[in-house]
Amino acid sequence: MIRHFLNTQDLSRAELDALLDEAARLKQSPLGRDLEGRTIALLFFNPSMRTRSSFEIGAWQLGAHAVVLAPGKDAWGIEFEPNAVMDGDAEEHVAEVAQVLSRYCDLIGVRAFPKFRDWAYDREDKVLKAFAQHSRVPVINLETITHPCQELAHALTLREKFGKDLRGKKYLLTWTWHPKPLNTAVANSALTIATRLGMEVTLLCPNPDYLLDERYLDIAKQNVGEAGGSFRITHDIEDGYRGADVVYAKSWGALPYFGAWEGEAPMRAMLKHFIVDEDKMALTNNGLFSHCLPLRRNIKATDGVMDAPYCVAVDEAENRLHVQKAVMKQLIHWKSGAQA
Amino acid sequence: MIRHFLNTQDLSRAELDALLDEAARLKQSPLGRDLEGRTIALLFFNPSMRTRSSFEIGAWQLGAHAVVLAPGKDAWGIEFEPNAVMDGDAEEHVAEVAQVLSRYCDLIGVRAFPKFRDWAYDREDKVLKAFAQHSRVPVINLETITHPCQELAHALTLREKFGKDLRGKKYLLTWTWHPKPLNTAVANSALTIATRLGMEVTLLCPNPDYLLDERYLDIAKQNVGEAGGSFRITHDIEDGYRGADVVYAKSWGALPYFGAWEGEAPMRAMLKHFIVDEDKMALTNNGLFSHCLPLRRNIKATDGVMDAPYCVAVDEAENRLHVQKAVMKQLIHWKSGAQA
Amino acid sequence: MIRHFLNTQDLSRAELDALLDEAARLKQSPLGRDLEGRTIALLFFNPSMRTRSSFEIGAWQLGAHAVVLAPGKDAWGIEFEPNAVMDGDAEEHVAEVAQVLSRYCDLIGVRAFPKFRDWAYDREDKVLKAFAQHSRVPVINLETITHPCQELAHALTLREKFGKDLRGKKYLLTWTWHPKPLNTAVANSALTIATRLGMEVTLLCPNPDYLLDERYLDIAKQNVGEAGGSFRITHDIEDGYRGADVVYAKSWGALPYFGAWEGEAPMRAMLKHFIVDEDKMALTNNGLFSHCLPLRRNIKATDGVMDAPYCVAVDEAENRLHVQKAVMKQLIHWKSGAQA
Repeated sequence: MIRHFLNTQDLSRAELDALLDEAARLKQSPLGRDLEGRTIALLFFNPSMRTRSSFEIGAWQLGAHAVVLAPGKDAWGIEFEPNAVMDGDAEEHVAEVAQVLSRYCDLIGVRAFPKFRDWAYDREDKVLKAFAQHSRVPVINLETITHPCQELAHALTLREKFGKDLRGKKYLLTWTWHPKPLNTAVANSALTIATRLGMEVTLLCPNPDYLLDERYLDIAKQNVGEAGGSFRITHDIEDGYRGADVVYAKSWGALPYFGAWEGEAPMRAMLKHFIVDEDKMALTNNGLFSHCLPLRRNIKATDGVMDAPYCVAVDEAENRLHVQKAVMKQLIHWKSGAQA
Repeated sequence: MIRHFLNTQDLSRAELDALLDEAARLKQSPLGRDLEGRTIALLFFNPSMRTRSSFEIGAWQLGAHAVVLAPGKDAWGIEFEPNAVMDGDAEEHVAEVAQVLSRYCDLIGVRAFPKFRDWAYDREDKVLKAFAQHSRVPVINLETITHPCQELAHALTLREKFGKDLRGKKYLLTWTWHPKPLNTAVANSALTIATRLGMEVTLLCPNPDYLLDERYLDIAKQNVGEAGGSFRITHDIEDGYRGADVVYAKSWGALPYFGAWEGEAPMRAMLKHFIVDEDKMALTNNGLFSHCLPLRRNIKATDGVMDAPYCVAVDEAENRLHVQKAVMKQLIHWKSGAQA
Repeated sequence: MIRHFLNTQDLSRAELDALLDEAARLKQSPLGRDLEGRTIALLFFNPSMRTRSSFEIGAWQLGAHAVVLAPGKDAWGIEFEPNAVMDGDAEEHVAEVAQVLSRYCDLIGVRAFPKFRDWAYDREDKVLKAFAQHSRVPVINLETITHPCQELAHALTLREKFGKDLRGKKYLLTWTWHPKPLNTAVANSALTIATRLGMEVTLLCPNPDYLLDERYLDIAKQNVGEAGGSFRITHDIEDGYRGADVVYAKSWGALPYFGAWEGEAPMRAMLKHFIVDEDKMALTNNGLFSHCLPLRRNIKATDGVMDAPYCVAVDEAENRLHVQKAVMKQLIHWKSGAQA
């Protein structure tokens, strides 16, 4: 059976640590031939700067070649529902796309954000799962409703700053202001990886409407059960920031308002004070700040925070390159069956 | 004089066979340095998934590099009429585009579908011919009003299933339902290559409005004269399918309605029963099914057909990679004058 | 301090000559490993055919890899104003984009045309300068309000035709007709490089509204002071062409009408006779003709001129490849500090 890279929860803790170790090694020695002659298809249903650049360059630095496709734009639109009578816009079915790309490529990466119309639908992650189902080669999640590559980059960055053992560190995931309702993927992912690594995790969001999907709250609790640490929720900004070693910020849309965003707008408009600023950071334990990027300055975080020495968002973005190379290597390795 | 790859009819039968032999060899041994240091420009005036991926990867697997351009989108719009006073949208003339790319690249690939407004115009294949005229390097047809790369992939697939000698095989090219009037290119090409290879060829289409351009009917007849086999037309579905060894499906717009599609719509709406389904396939001689892809499932062919063991569409798509590598190699070889 | 390639005026004459010498050498020997393992990000805010192809291929021919990004299209929209409250369309700030790409890449190329709404704003070249400010790696101007890569290609072409010493050559930069008001970048650049190389330079434009920005007129005068040669302006076509050794054509919008183009339109409509045609070329000293491309035939120059043996526009386009390879090599070399 093919092992994909869809979510970090699919990895054992040992596998997770091994990926991070290998990423650290690749950061020291970026050029190699580990993926000599290999190819990866990168399918983007949404824009990308870091993901696309870092995968394309990472593949190339190890001797592989990335093909970048934008279905519905430069490539044909794709249908994902099984048994669909395809009389709409889509010109081909994921069954064929995934199978054909499996003939051309050794790996397939997929970025597919939610449609933001119906969370009950989006939370099924159908695009990613359909590729995983029909592909004959490993599939990599380039951000759908989670962002596991970002998780690894985030984890590597924290390991670089605090050492490998992150247990006991106070970790704040804070909702932050943004004019538009965004994907919860990075928030789901942050919660997942922070609890996985045994930290003392607080989720700060304005009110219960901004809670993440129960699936990810459950994962957080489950991870705490296994890794130690803790997980709590607060709606009090000062309570959230006080004593934090790490502040990770993300904005997202309130799940109850998916597909009816006009109802969320008045509430959202009152929440600009959730911006990460220097006053809030002063409440922390000389905490680090990070964000997955892209980030709107002076909306999600102030210039003062972004330009502070404690901001490691650019380091985390760099680490995307290193962790993804480790992921590609590992998936090829598993596929080759060298690890039986 | 430069030899291009515009249509398979420009190749001798021996050359055609040699390309297929080389493609089969490259399929066994995909990596090489035959195109070391070479570059190919791939110009897409229309979307592509397979063509773009397979050319880009194929070039790379042989040591070359492909540059992908979308004139009118990421690159400047191009004028194709000689002596045009260029006060419209186009910013440059194919004369310059082709000459400049000839300085940068060893090969130029061009995808340019018909405009679907006037078949008398489209049938002249002016974009492709203009590139061939102005280019100083070999030009490859990536699908215009024919699709010779698909022909080679199709032929290689049939050879893999039936052996090199395809004479005597009953070959059905069937029109199939689709909500939109599509390009006749693959149908023209299927007729061309199937008759070229000496098969017993039937063209099944709903009525005489759906006949292909006389040029391709004439090529079919000419090929029959040279290769043996036969060519006939039917509008009777059962008659078409009965005893077929190969069913190749394609939908296309009726030529008399080019540019006035609203007139075709009522007729087309009555033709949904041309879908390739398991009942029809049951009439064949345990026939293979194939299609060039993209394919709308449950419109052009049912899930049952697409998922059947006799469906070789994905194999054919894979073979695009191998045949195109053979084409690139051959064109470079001819250009180098090694074959005097 | 990082040395960028923003404008040729930032180079000493010796550096400029060395780049052209190296470009000539690379033209003879195009393949190498000088940029082995290096990467360049190419950011296009505007379309490109030559720039994108030649940089991507040039990098590849020397062992490097180019990543092509289109911010606002396949990548996120970017904010350039310092301290902006980013509640508009842009999803991230150039500070992060430039820093992150500096982690992934060894070089960053930027194409960013003026907005054509306010020349007082556009002339500040803020996009390019912002990248240069925030990048930790050398930045290359791929055309903003100047086009230094084109300058080098132009210079190399003239050296190939006339020899290295261009002093005394009569050089005409002529405005030419075009239905739309275009960027002045290539005109600014032509004036800059032609005076830099000590030629006898004439700027021919229809009337004082079409004069270039004072900054570039001043650079021209300053260059004359240093390199010898001369610089004059004329509005008389015959006066401009007579005896010219080189005719370089470009169309551009009249600066006083930036953002109010409807006012320029009636004046522009009377200027079609500025087209470069064979009659005008007959006034020259068997002069060469060139243009940066893209060029609208029979609008900016006639077919007769474009197809004449004296037209070296395609040679100049080819030389983009060679000079840009020299630029990339030099920037990496400077960055490596090998030249202390």
